[in-house]
Amino acid sequence: MNEFDFIEKYLSSNKKSNKFSLNFKDDVGYANNSIFSTDTICEGVHFNTNDNPFYVAKKLIRVNVSDVIAKGIAPKFCLLNLSLGKSVNEAWLKKFMKGFNEDLSLYKLNLIGGDTTNTLQKTVLSLTIFSDLKNKKFIKRSSAKNNNFIYVTGTIGDSSLGLYCIKNLNLKLPKKYLNYLKKRYLVPEPRFELASFINKNASSSTDISDGLYSDLNNICKASGLGADIYFPKIPISKAALKLIAVKSNLKERVINGGDDYEILFTGPKGLDRKENITMIGKMTNGNKINFIDFDDSIKLDGYKHEI
Amino acid sequence: MNEFDFIEKYLSSNKKSNKFSLNFKDDVGYANNSIFSTDTICEGVHFNTNDNPFYVAKKLIRVNVSDVIAKGIAPKFCLLNLSLGKSVNEAWLKKFMKGFNEDLSLYKLNLIGGDTTNTLQKTVLSLTIFSDLKNKKFIKRSSAKNNNFIYVTGTIGDSSLGLYCIKNLNLKLPKKYLNYLKKRYLVPEPRFELASFINKNASSSTDISDGLYSDLNNICKASGLGADIYFPKIPISKAALKLIAVKSNLKERVINGGDDYEILFTGPKGLDRKENITMIGKMTNGNKINFIDFDDSIKLDGYKHEI
Repeated sequence: MNEFDFIEKYLSSNKKSNKFSLNFKDDVGYANNSIFSTDTICEGVHFNTNDNPFYVAKKLIRVNVSDVIAKGIAPKFCLLNLSLGKSVNEAWLKKFMKGFNEDLSLYKLNLIGGDTTNTLQKTVLSLTIFSDLKNKKFIKRSSAKNNNFIYVTGTIGDSSLGLYCIKNLNLKLPKKYLNYLKKRYLVPEPRFELASFINKNASSSTDISDGLYSDLNNICKASGLGADIYFPKIPISKAALKLIAVKSNLKERVINGGDDYEILFTGPKGLDRKENITMIGKMTNGNKINFIDFDDSIKLDGYKHEI
Repeated sequence: MNEFDFIEKYLSSNKKSNKFSLNFKDDVGYANNSIFSTDTICEGVHFNTNDNPFYVAKKLIRVNVSDVIAKGIAPKFCLLNLSLGKSVNEAWLKKFMKGFNEDLSLYKLNLIGGDTTNTLQKTVLSLTIFSDLKNKKFIKRSSAKNNNFIYVTGTIGDSSLGLYCIKNLNLKLPKKYLNYLKKRYLVPEPRFELASFINKNASSSTDISDGLYSDLNNICKASGLGADIYFPKIPISKAALKLIAVKSNLKERVINGGDDYEILFTGPKGLDRKENITMIGKMTNGNKINFIDFDDSIKLDGYKHEI
């Protein structure tokens, strides 16, 4: 059972929570004039036992920052649940907290509480993050309008291709490309600088964590619309193009690969005049996503987190 | 390294967070006119693989409710992080969510978000809970005054003795006492009904989760005071007395046993006129806790969570 099934089965009927949870159909919940996001990463699922804990900490913070930023809001507070596994020692914890405290400063976050415990097995890390809205609106998934243009930030698919590079050691690709892609996987860079632009201009918005197709599907479903995507317009990094040129079957990761932590949003024409933003399609009155100039060999699928 | 050492080493220096985290020296953090608590329970540490998931869910909610109630505030919202282990199946989840939803109603909590993931190993469950203060004050650990009287709710030590009963099957004790003690461990009952009494009357307050000695020590340290405790005044249930009569070495659990989720608070004389509240001592100008009429064979210690 995946998260969508779980929500459908056990939570959607909980009417009292709907107002605050946005029916569990957004990246955030809303209460006390704040928006909230929480994410867990597990050793052996979202990171490896031997990954540098300095970057594990940054990933934990950034996957959560990304959810709030995509709503056009800068997060402000967080709580940390450290459930430490048997492979954690003092050195691990020291590096983890160095990365953690560095990113607290970078994103101007205040750690207000948490819990530490030992699992006796593998490590499980949760962060809950929230923001004081100060009566500012936040941008939901559900508010896209027909004929809105669809935009993404940065380049798409890098993170999933980076993970491929980490797992496949003998790739014939120049080192600078390999390093670029790996870094995109290991240390996501949420578009912190675009939060207020999104707040001012987007009609709907989400971050790309489960893959472009899956996250666009969330916007379409929540907004009751379809979408046309011009496949050749999807921005792909030079490194990703080089890798796909070597391994053409990896092309599907541009659409299905997750963990990019870029922003997918809708709005009026012309928002791509801003740096790092690309228009890739339009919302439609339909109920499905059409890829135009699409490579038919690609299967559309949501991202299942892999290591 | 325990949680206190962890906070001392990695968090206390983080000055920017201190205002909101109350220096990590309280049960809660404070932000946006809300107070926040978060707690994690791990399979094999805080609950057993074969424990009824209906009660595991209730325990998860109640240990968190307890933290907020002890501040004299009713919690209102929560976020749930389910990191499901390999022993979790559909039946487990169904029972878990039944208990969870039942307690959401009981405590008038709104679930506003969460995250579900799979650990591939053991289950780890976190809940983050918070409350809209609506400009009401909340009762800290750090505000006890010299000569304040010290009070507890309910009876102390039952939960830890209940755990002993679960682990030791051949105890010669009437079944009604065994069942009472076990239930106190398995399904804590936070003193929800006393929240507003605490808010109105207590000068400082905390819940008893790590054991009377350890939690009183937190109040003493945070308030810069000592305490005199009249040992014979500590309220002990009939079932606990019967068990201690059989196994006298268990007496120390009254002071050191955790998981009672009763409230320990300080305030003016006479608060024990209220039902279920017992005066057990006084705050002093010292820097240590003196037990008066104490059984010297008892070693004072904080509670280490055990199964």
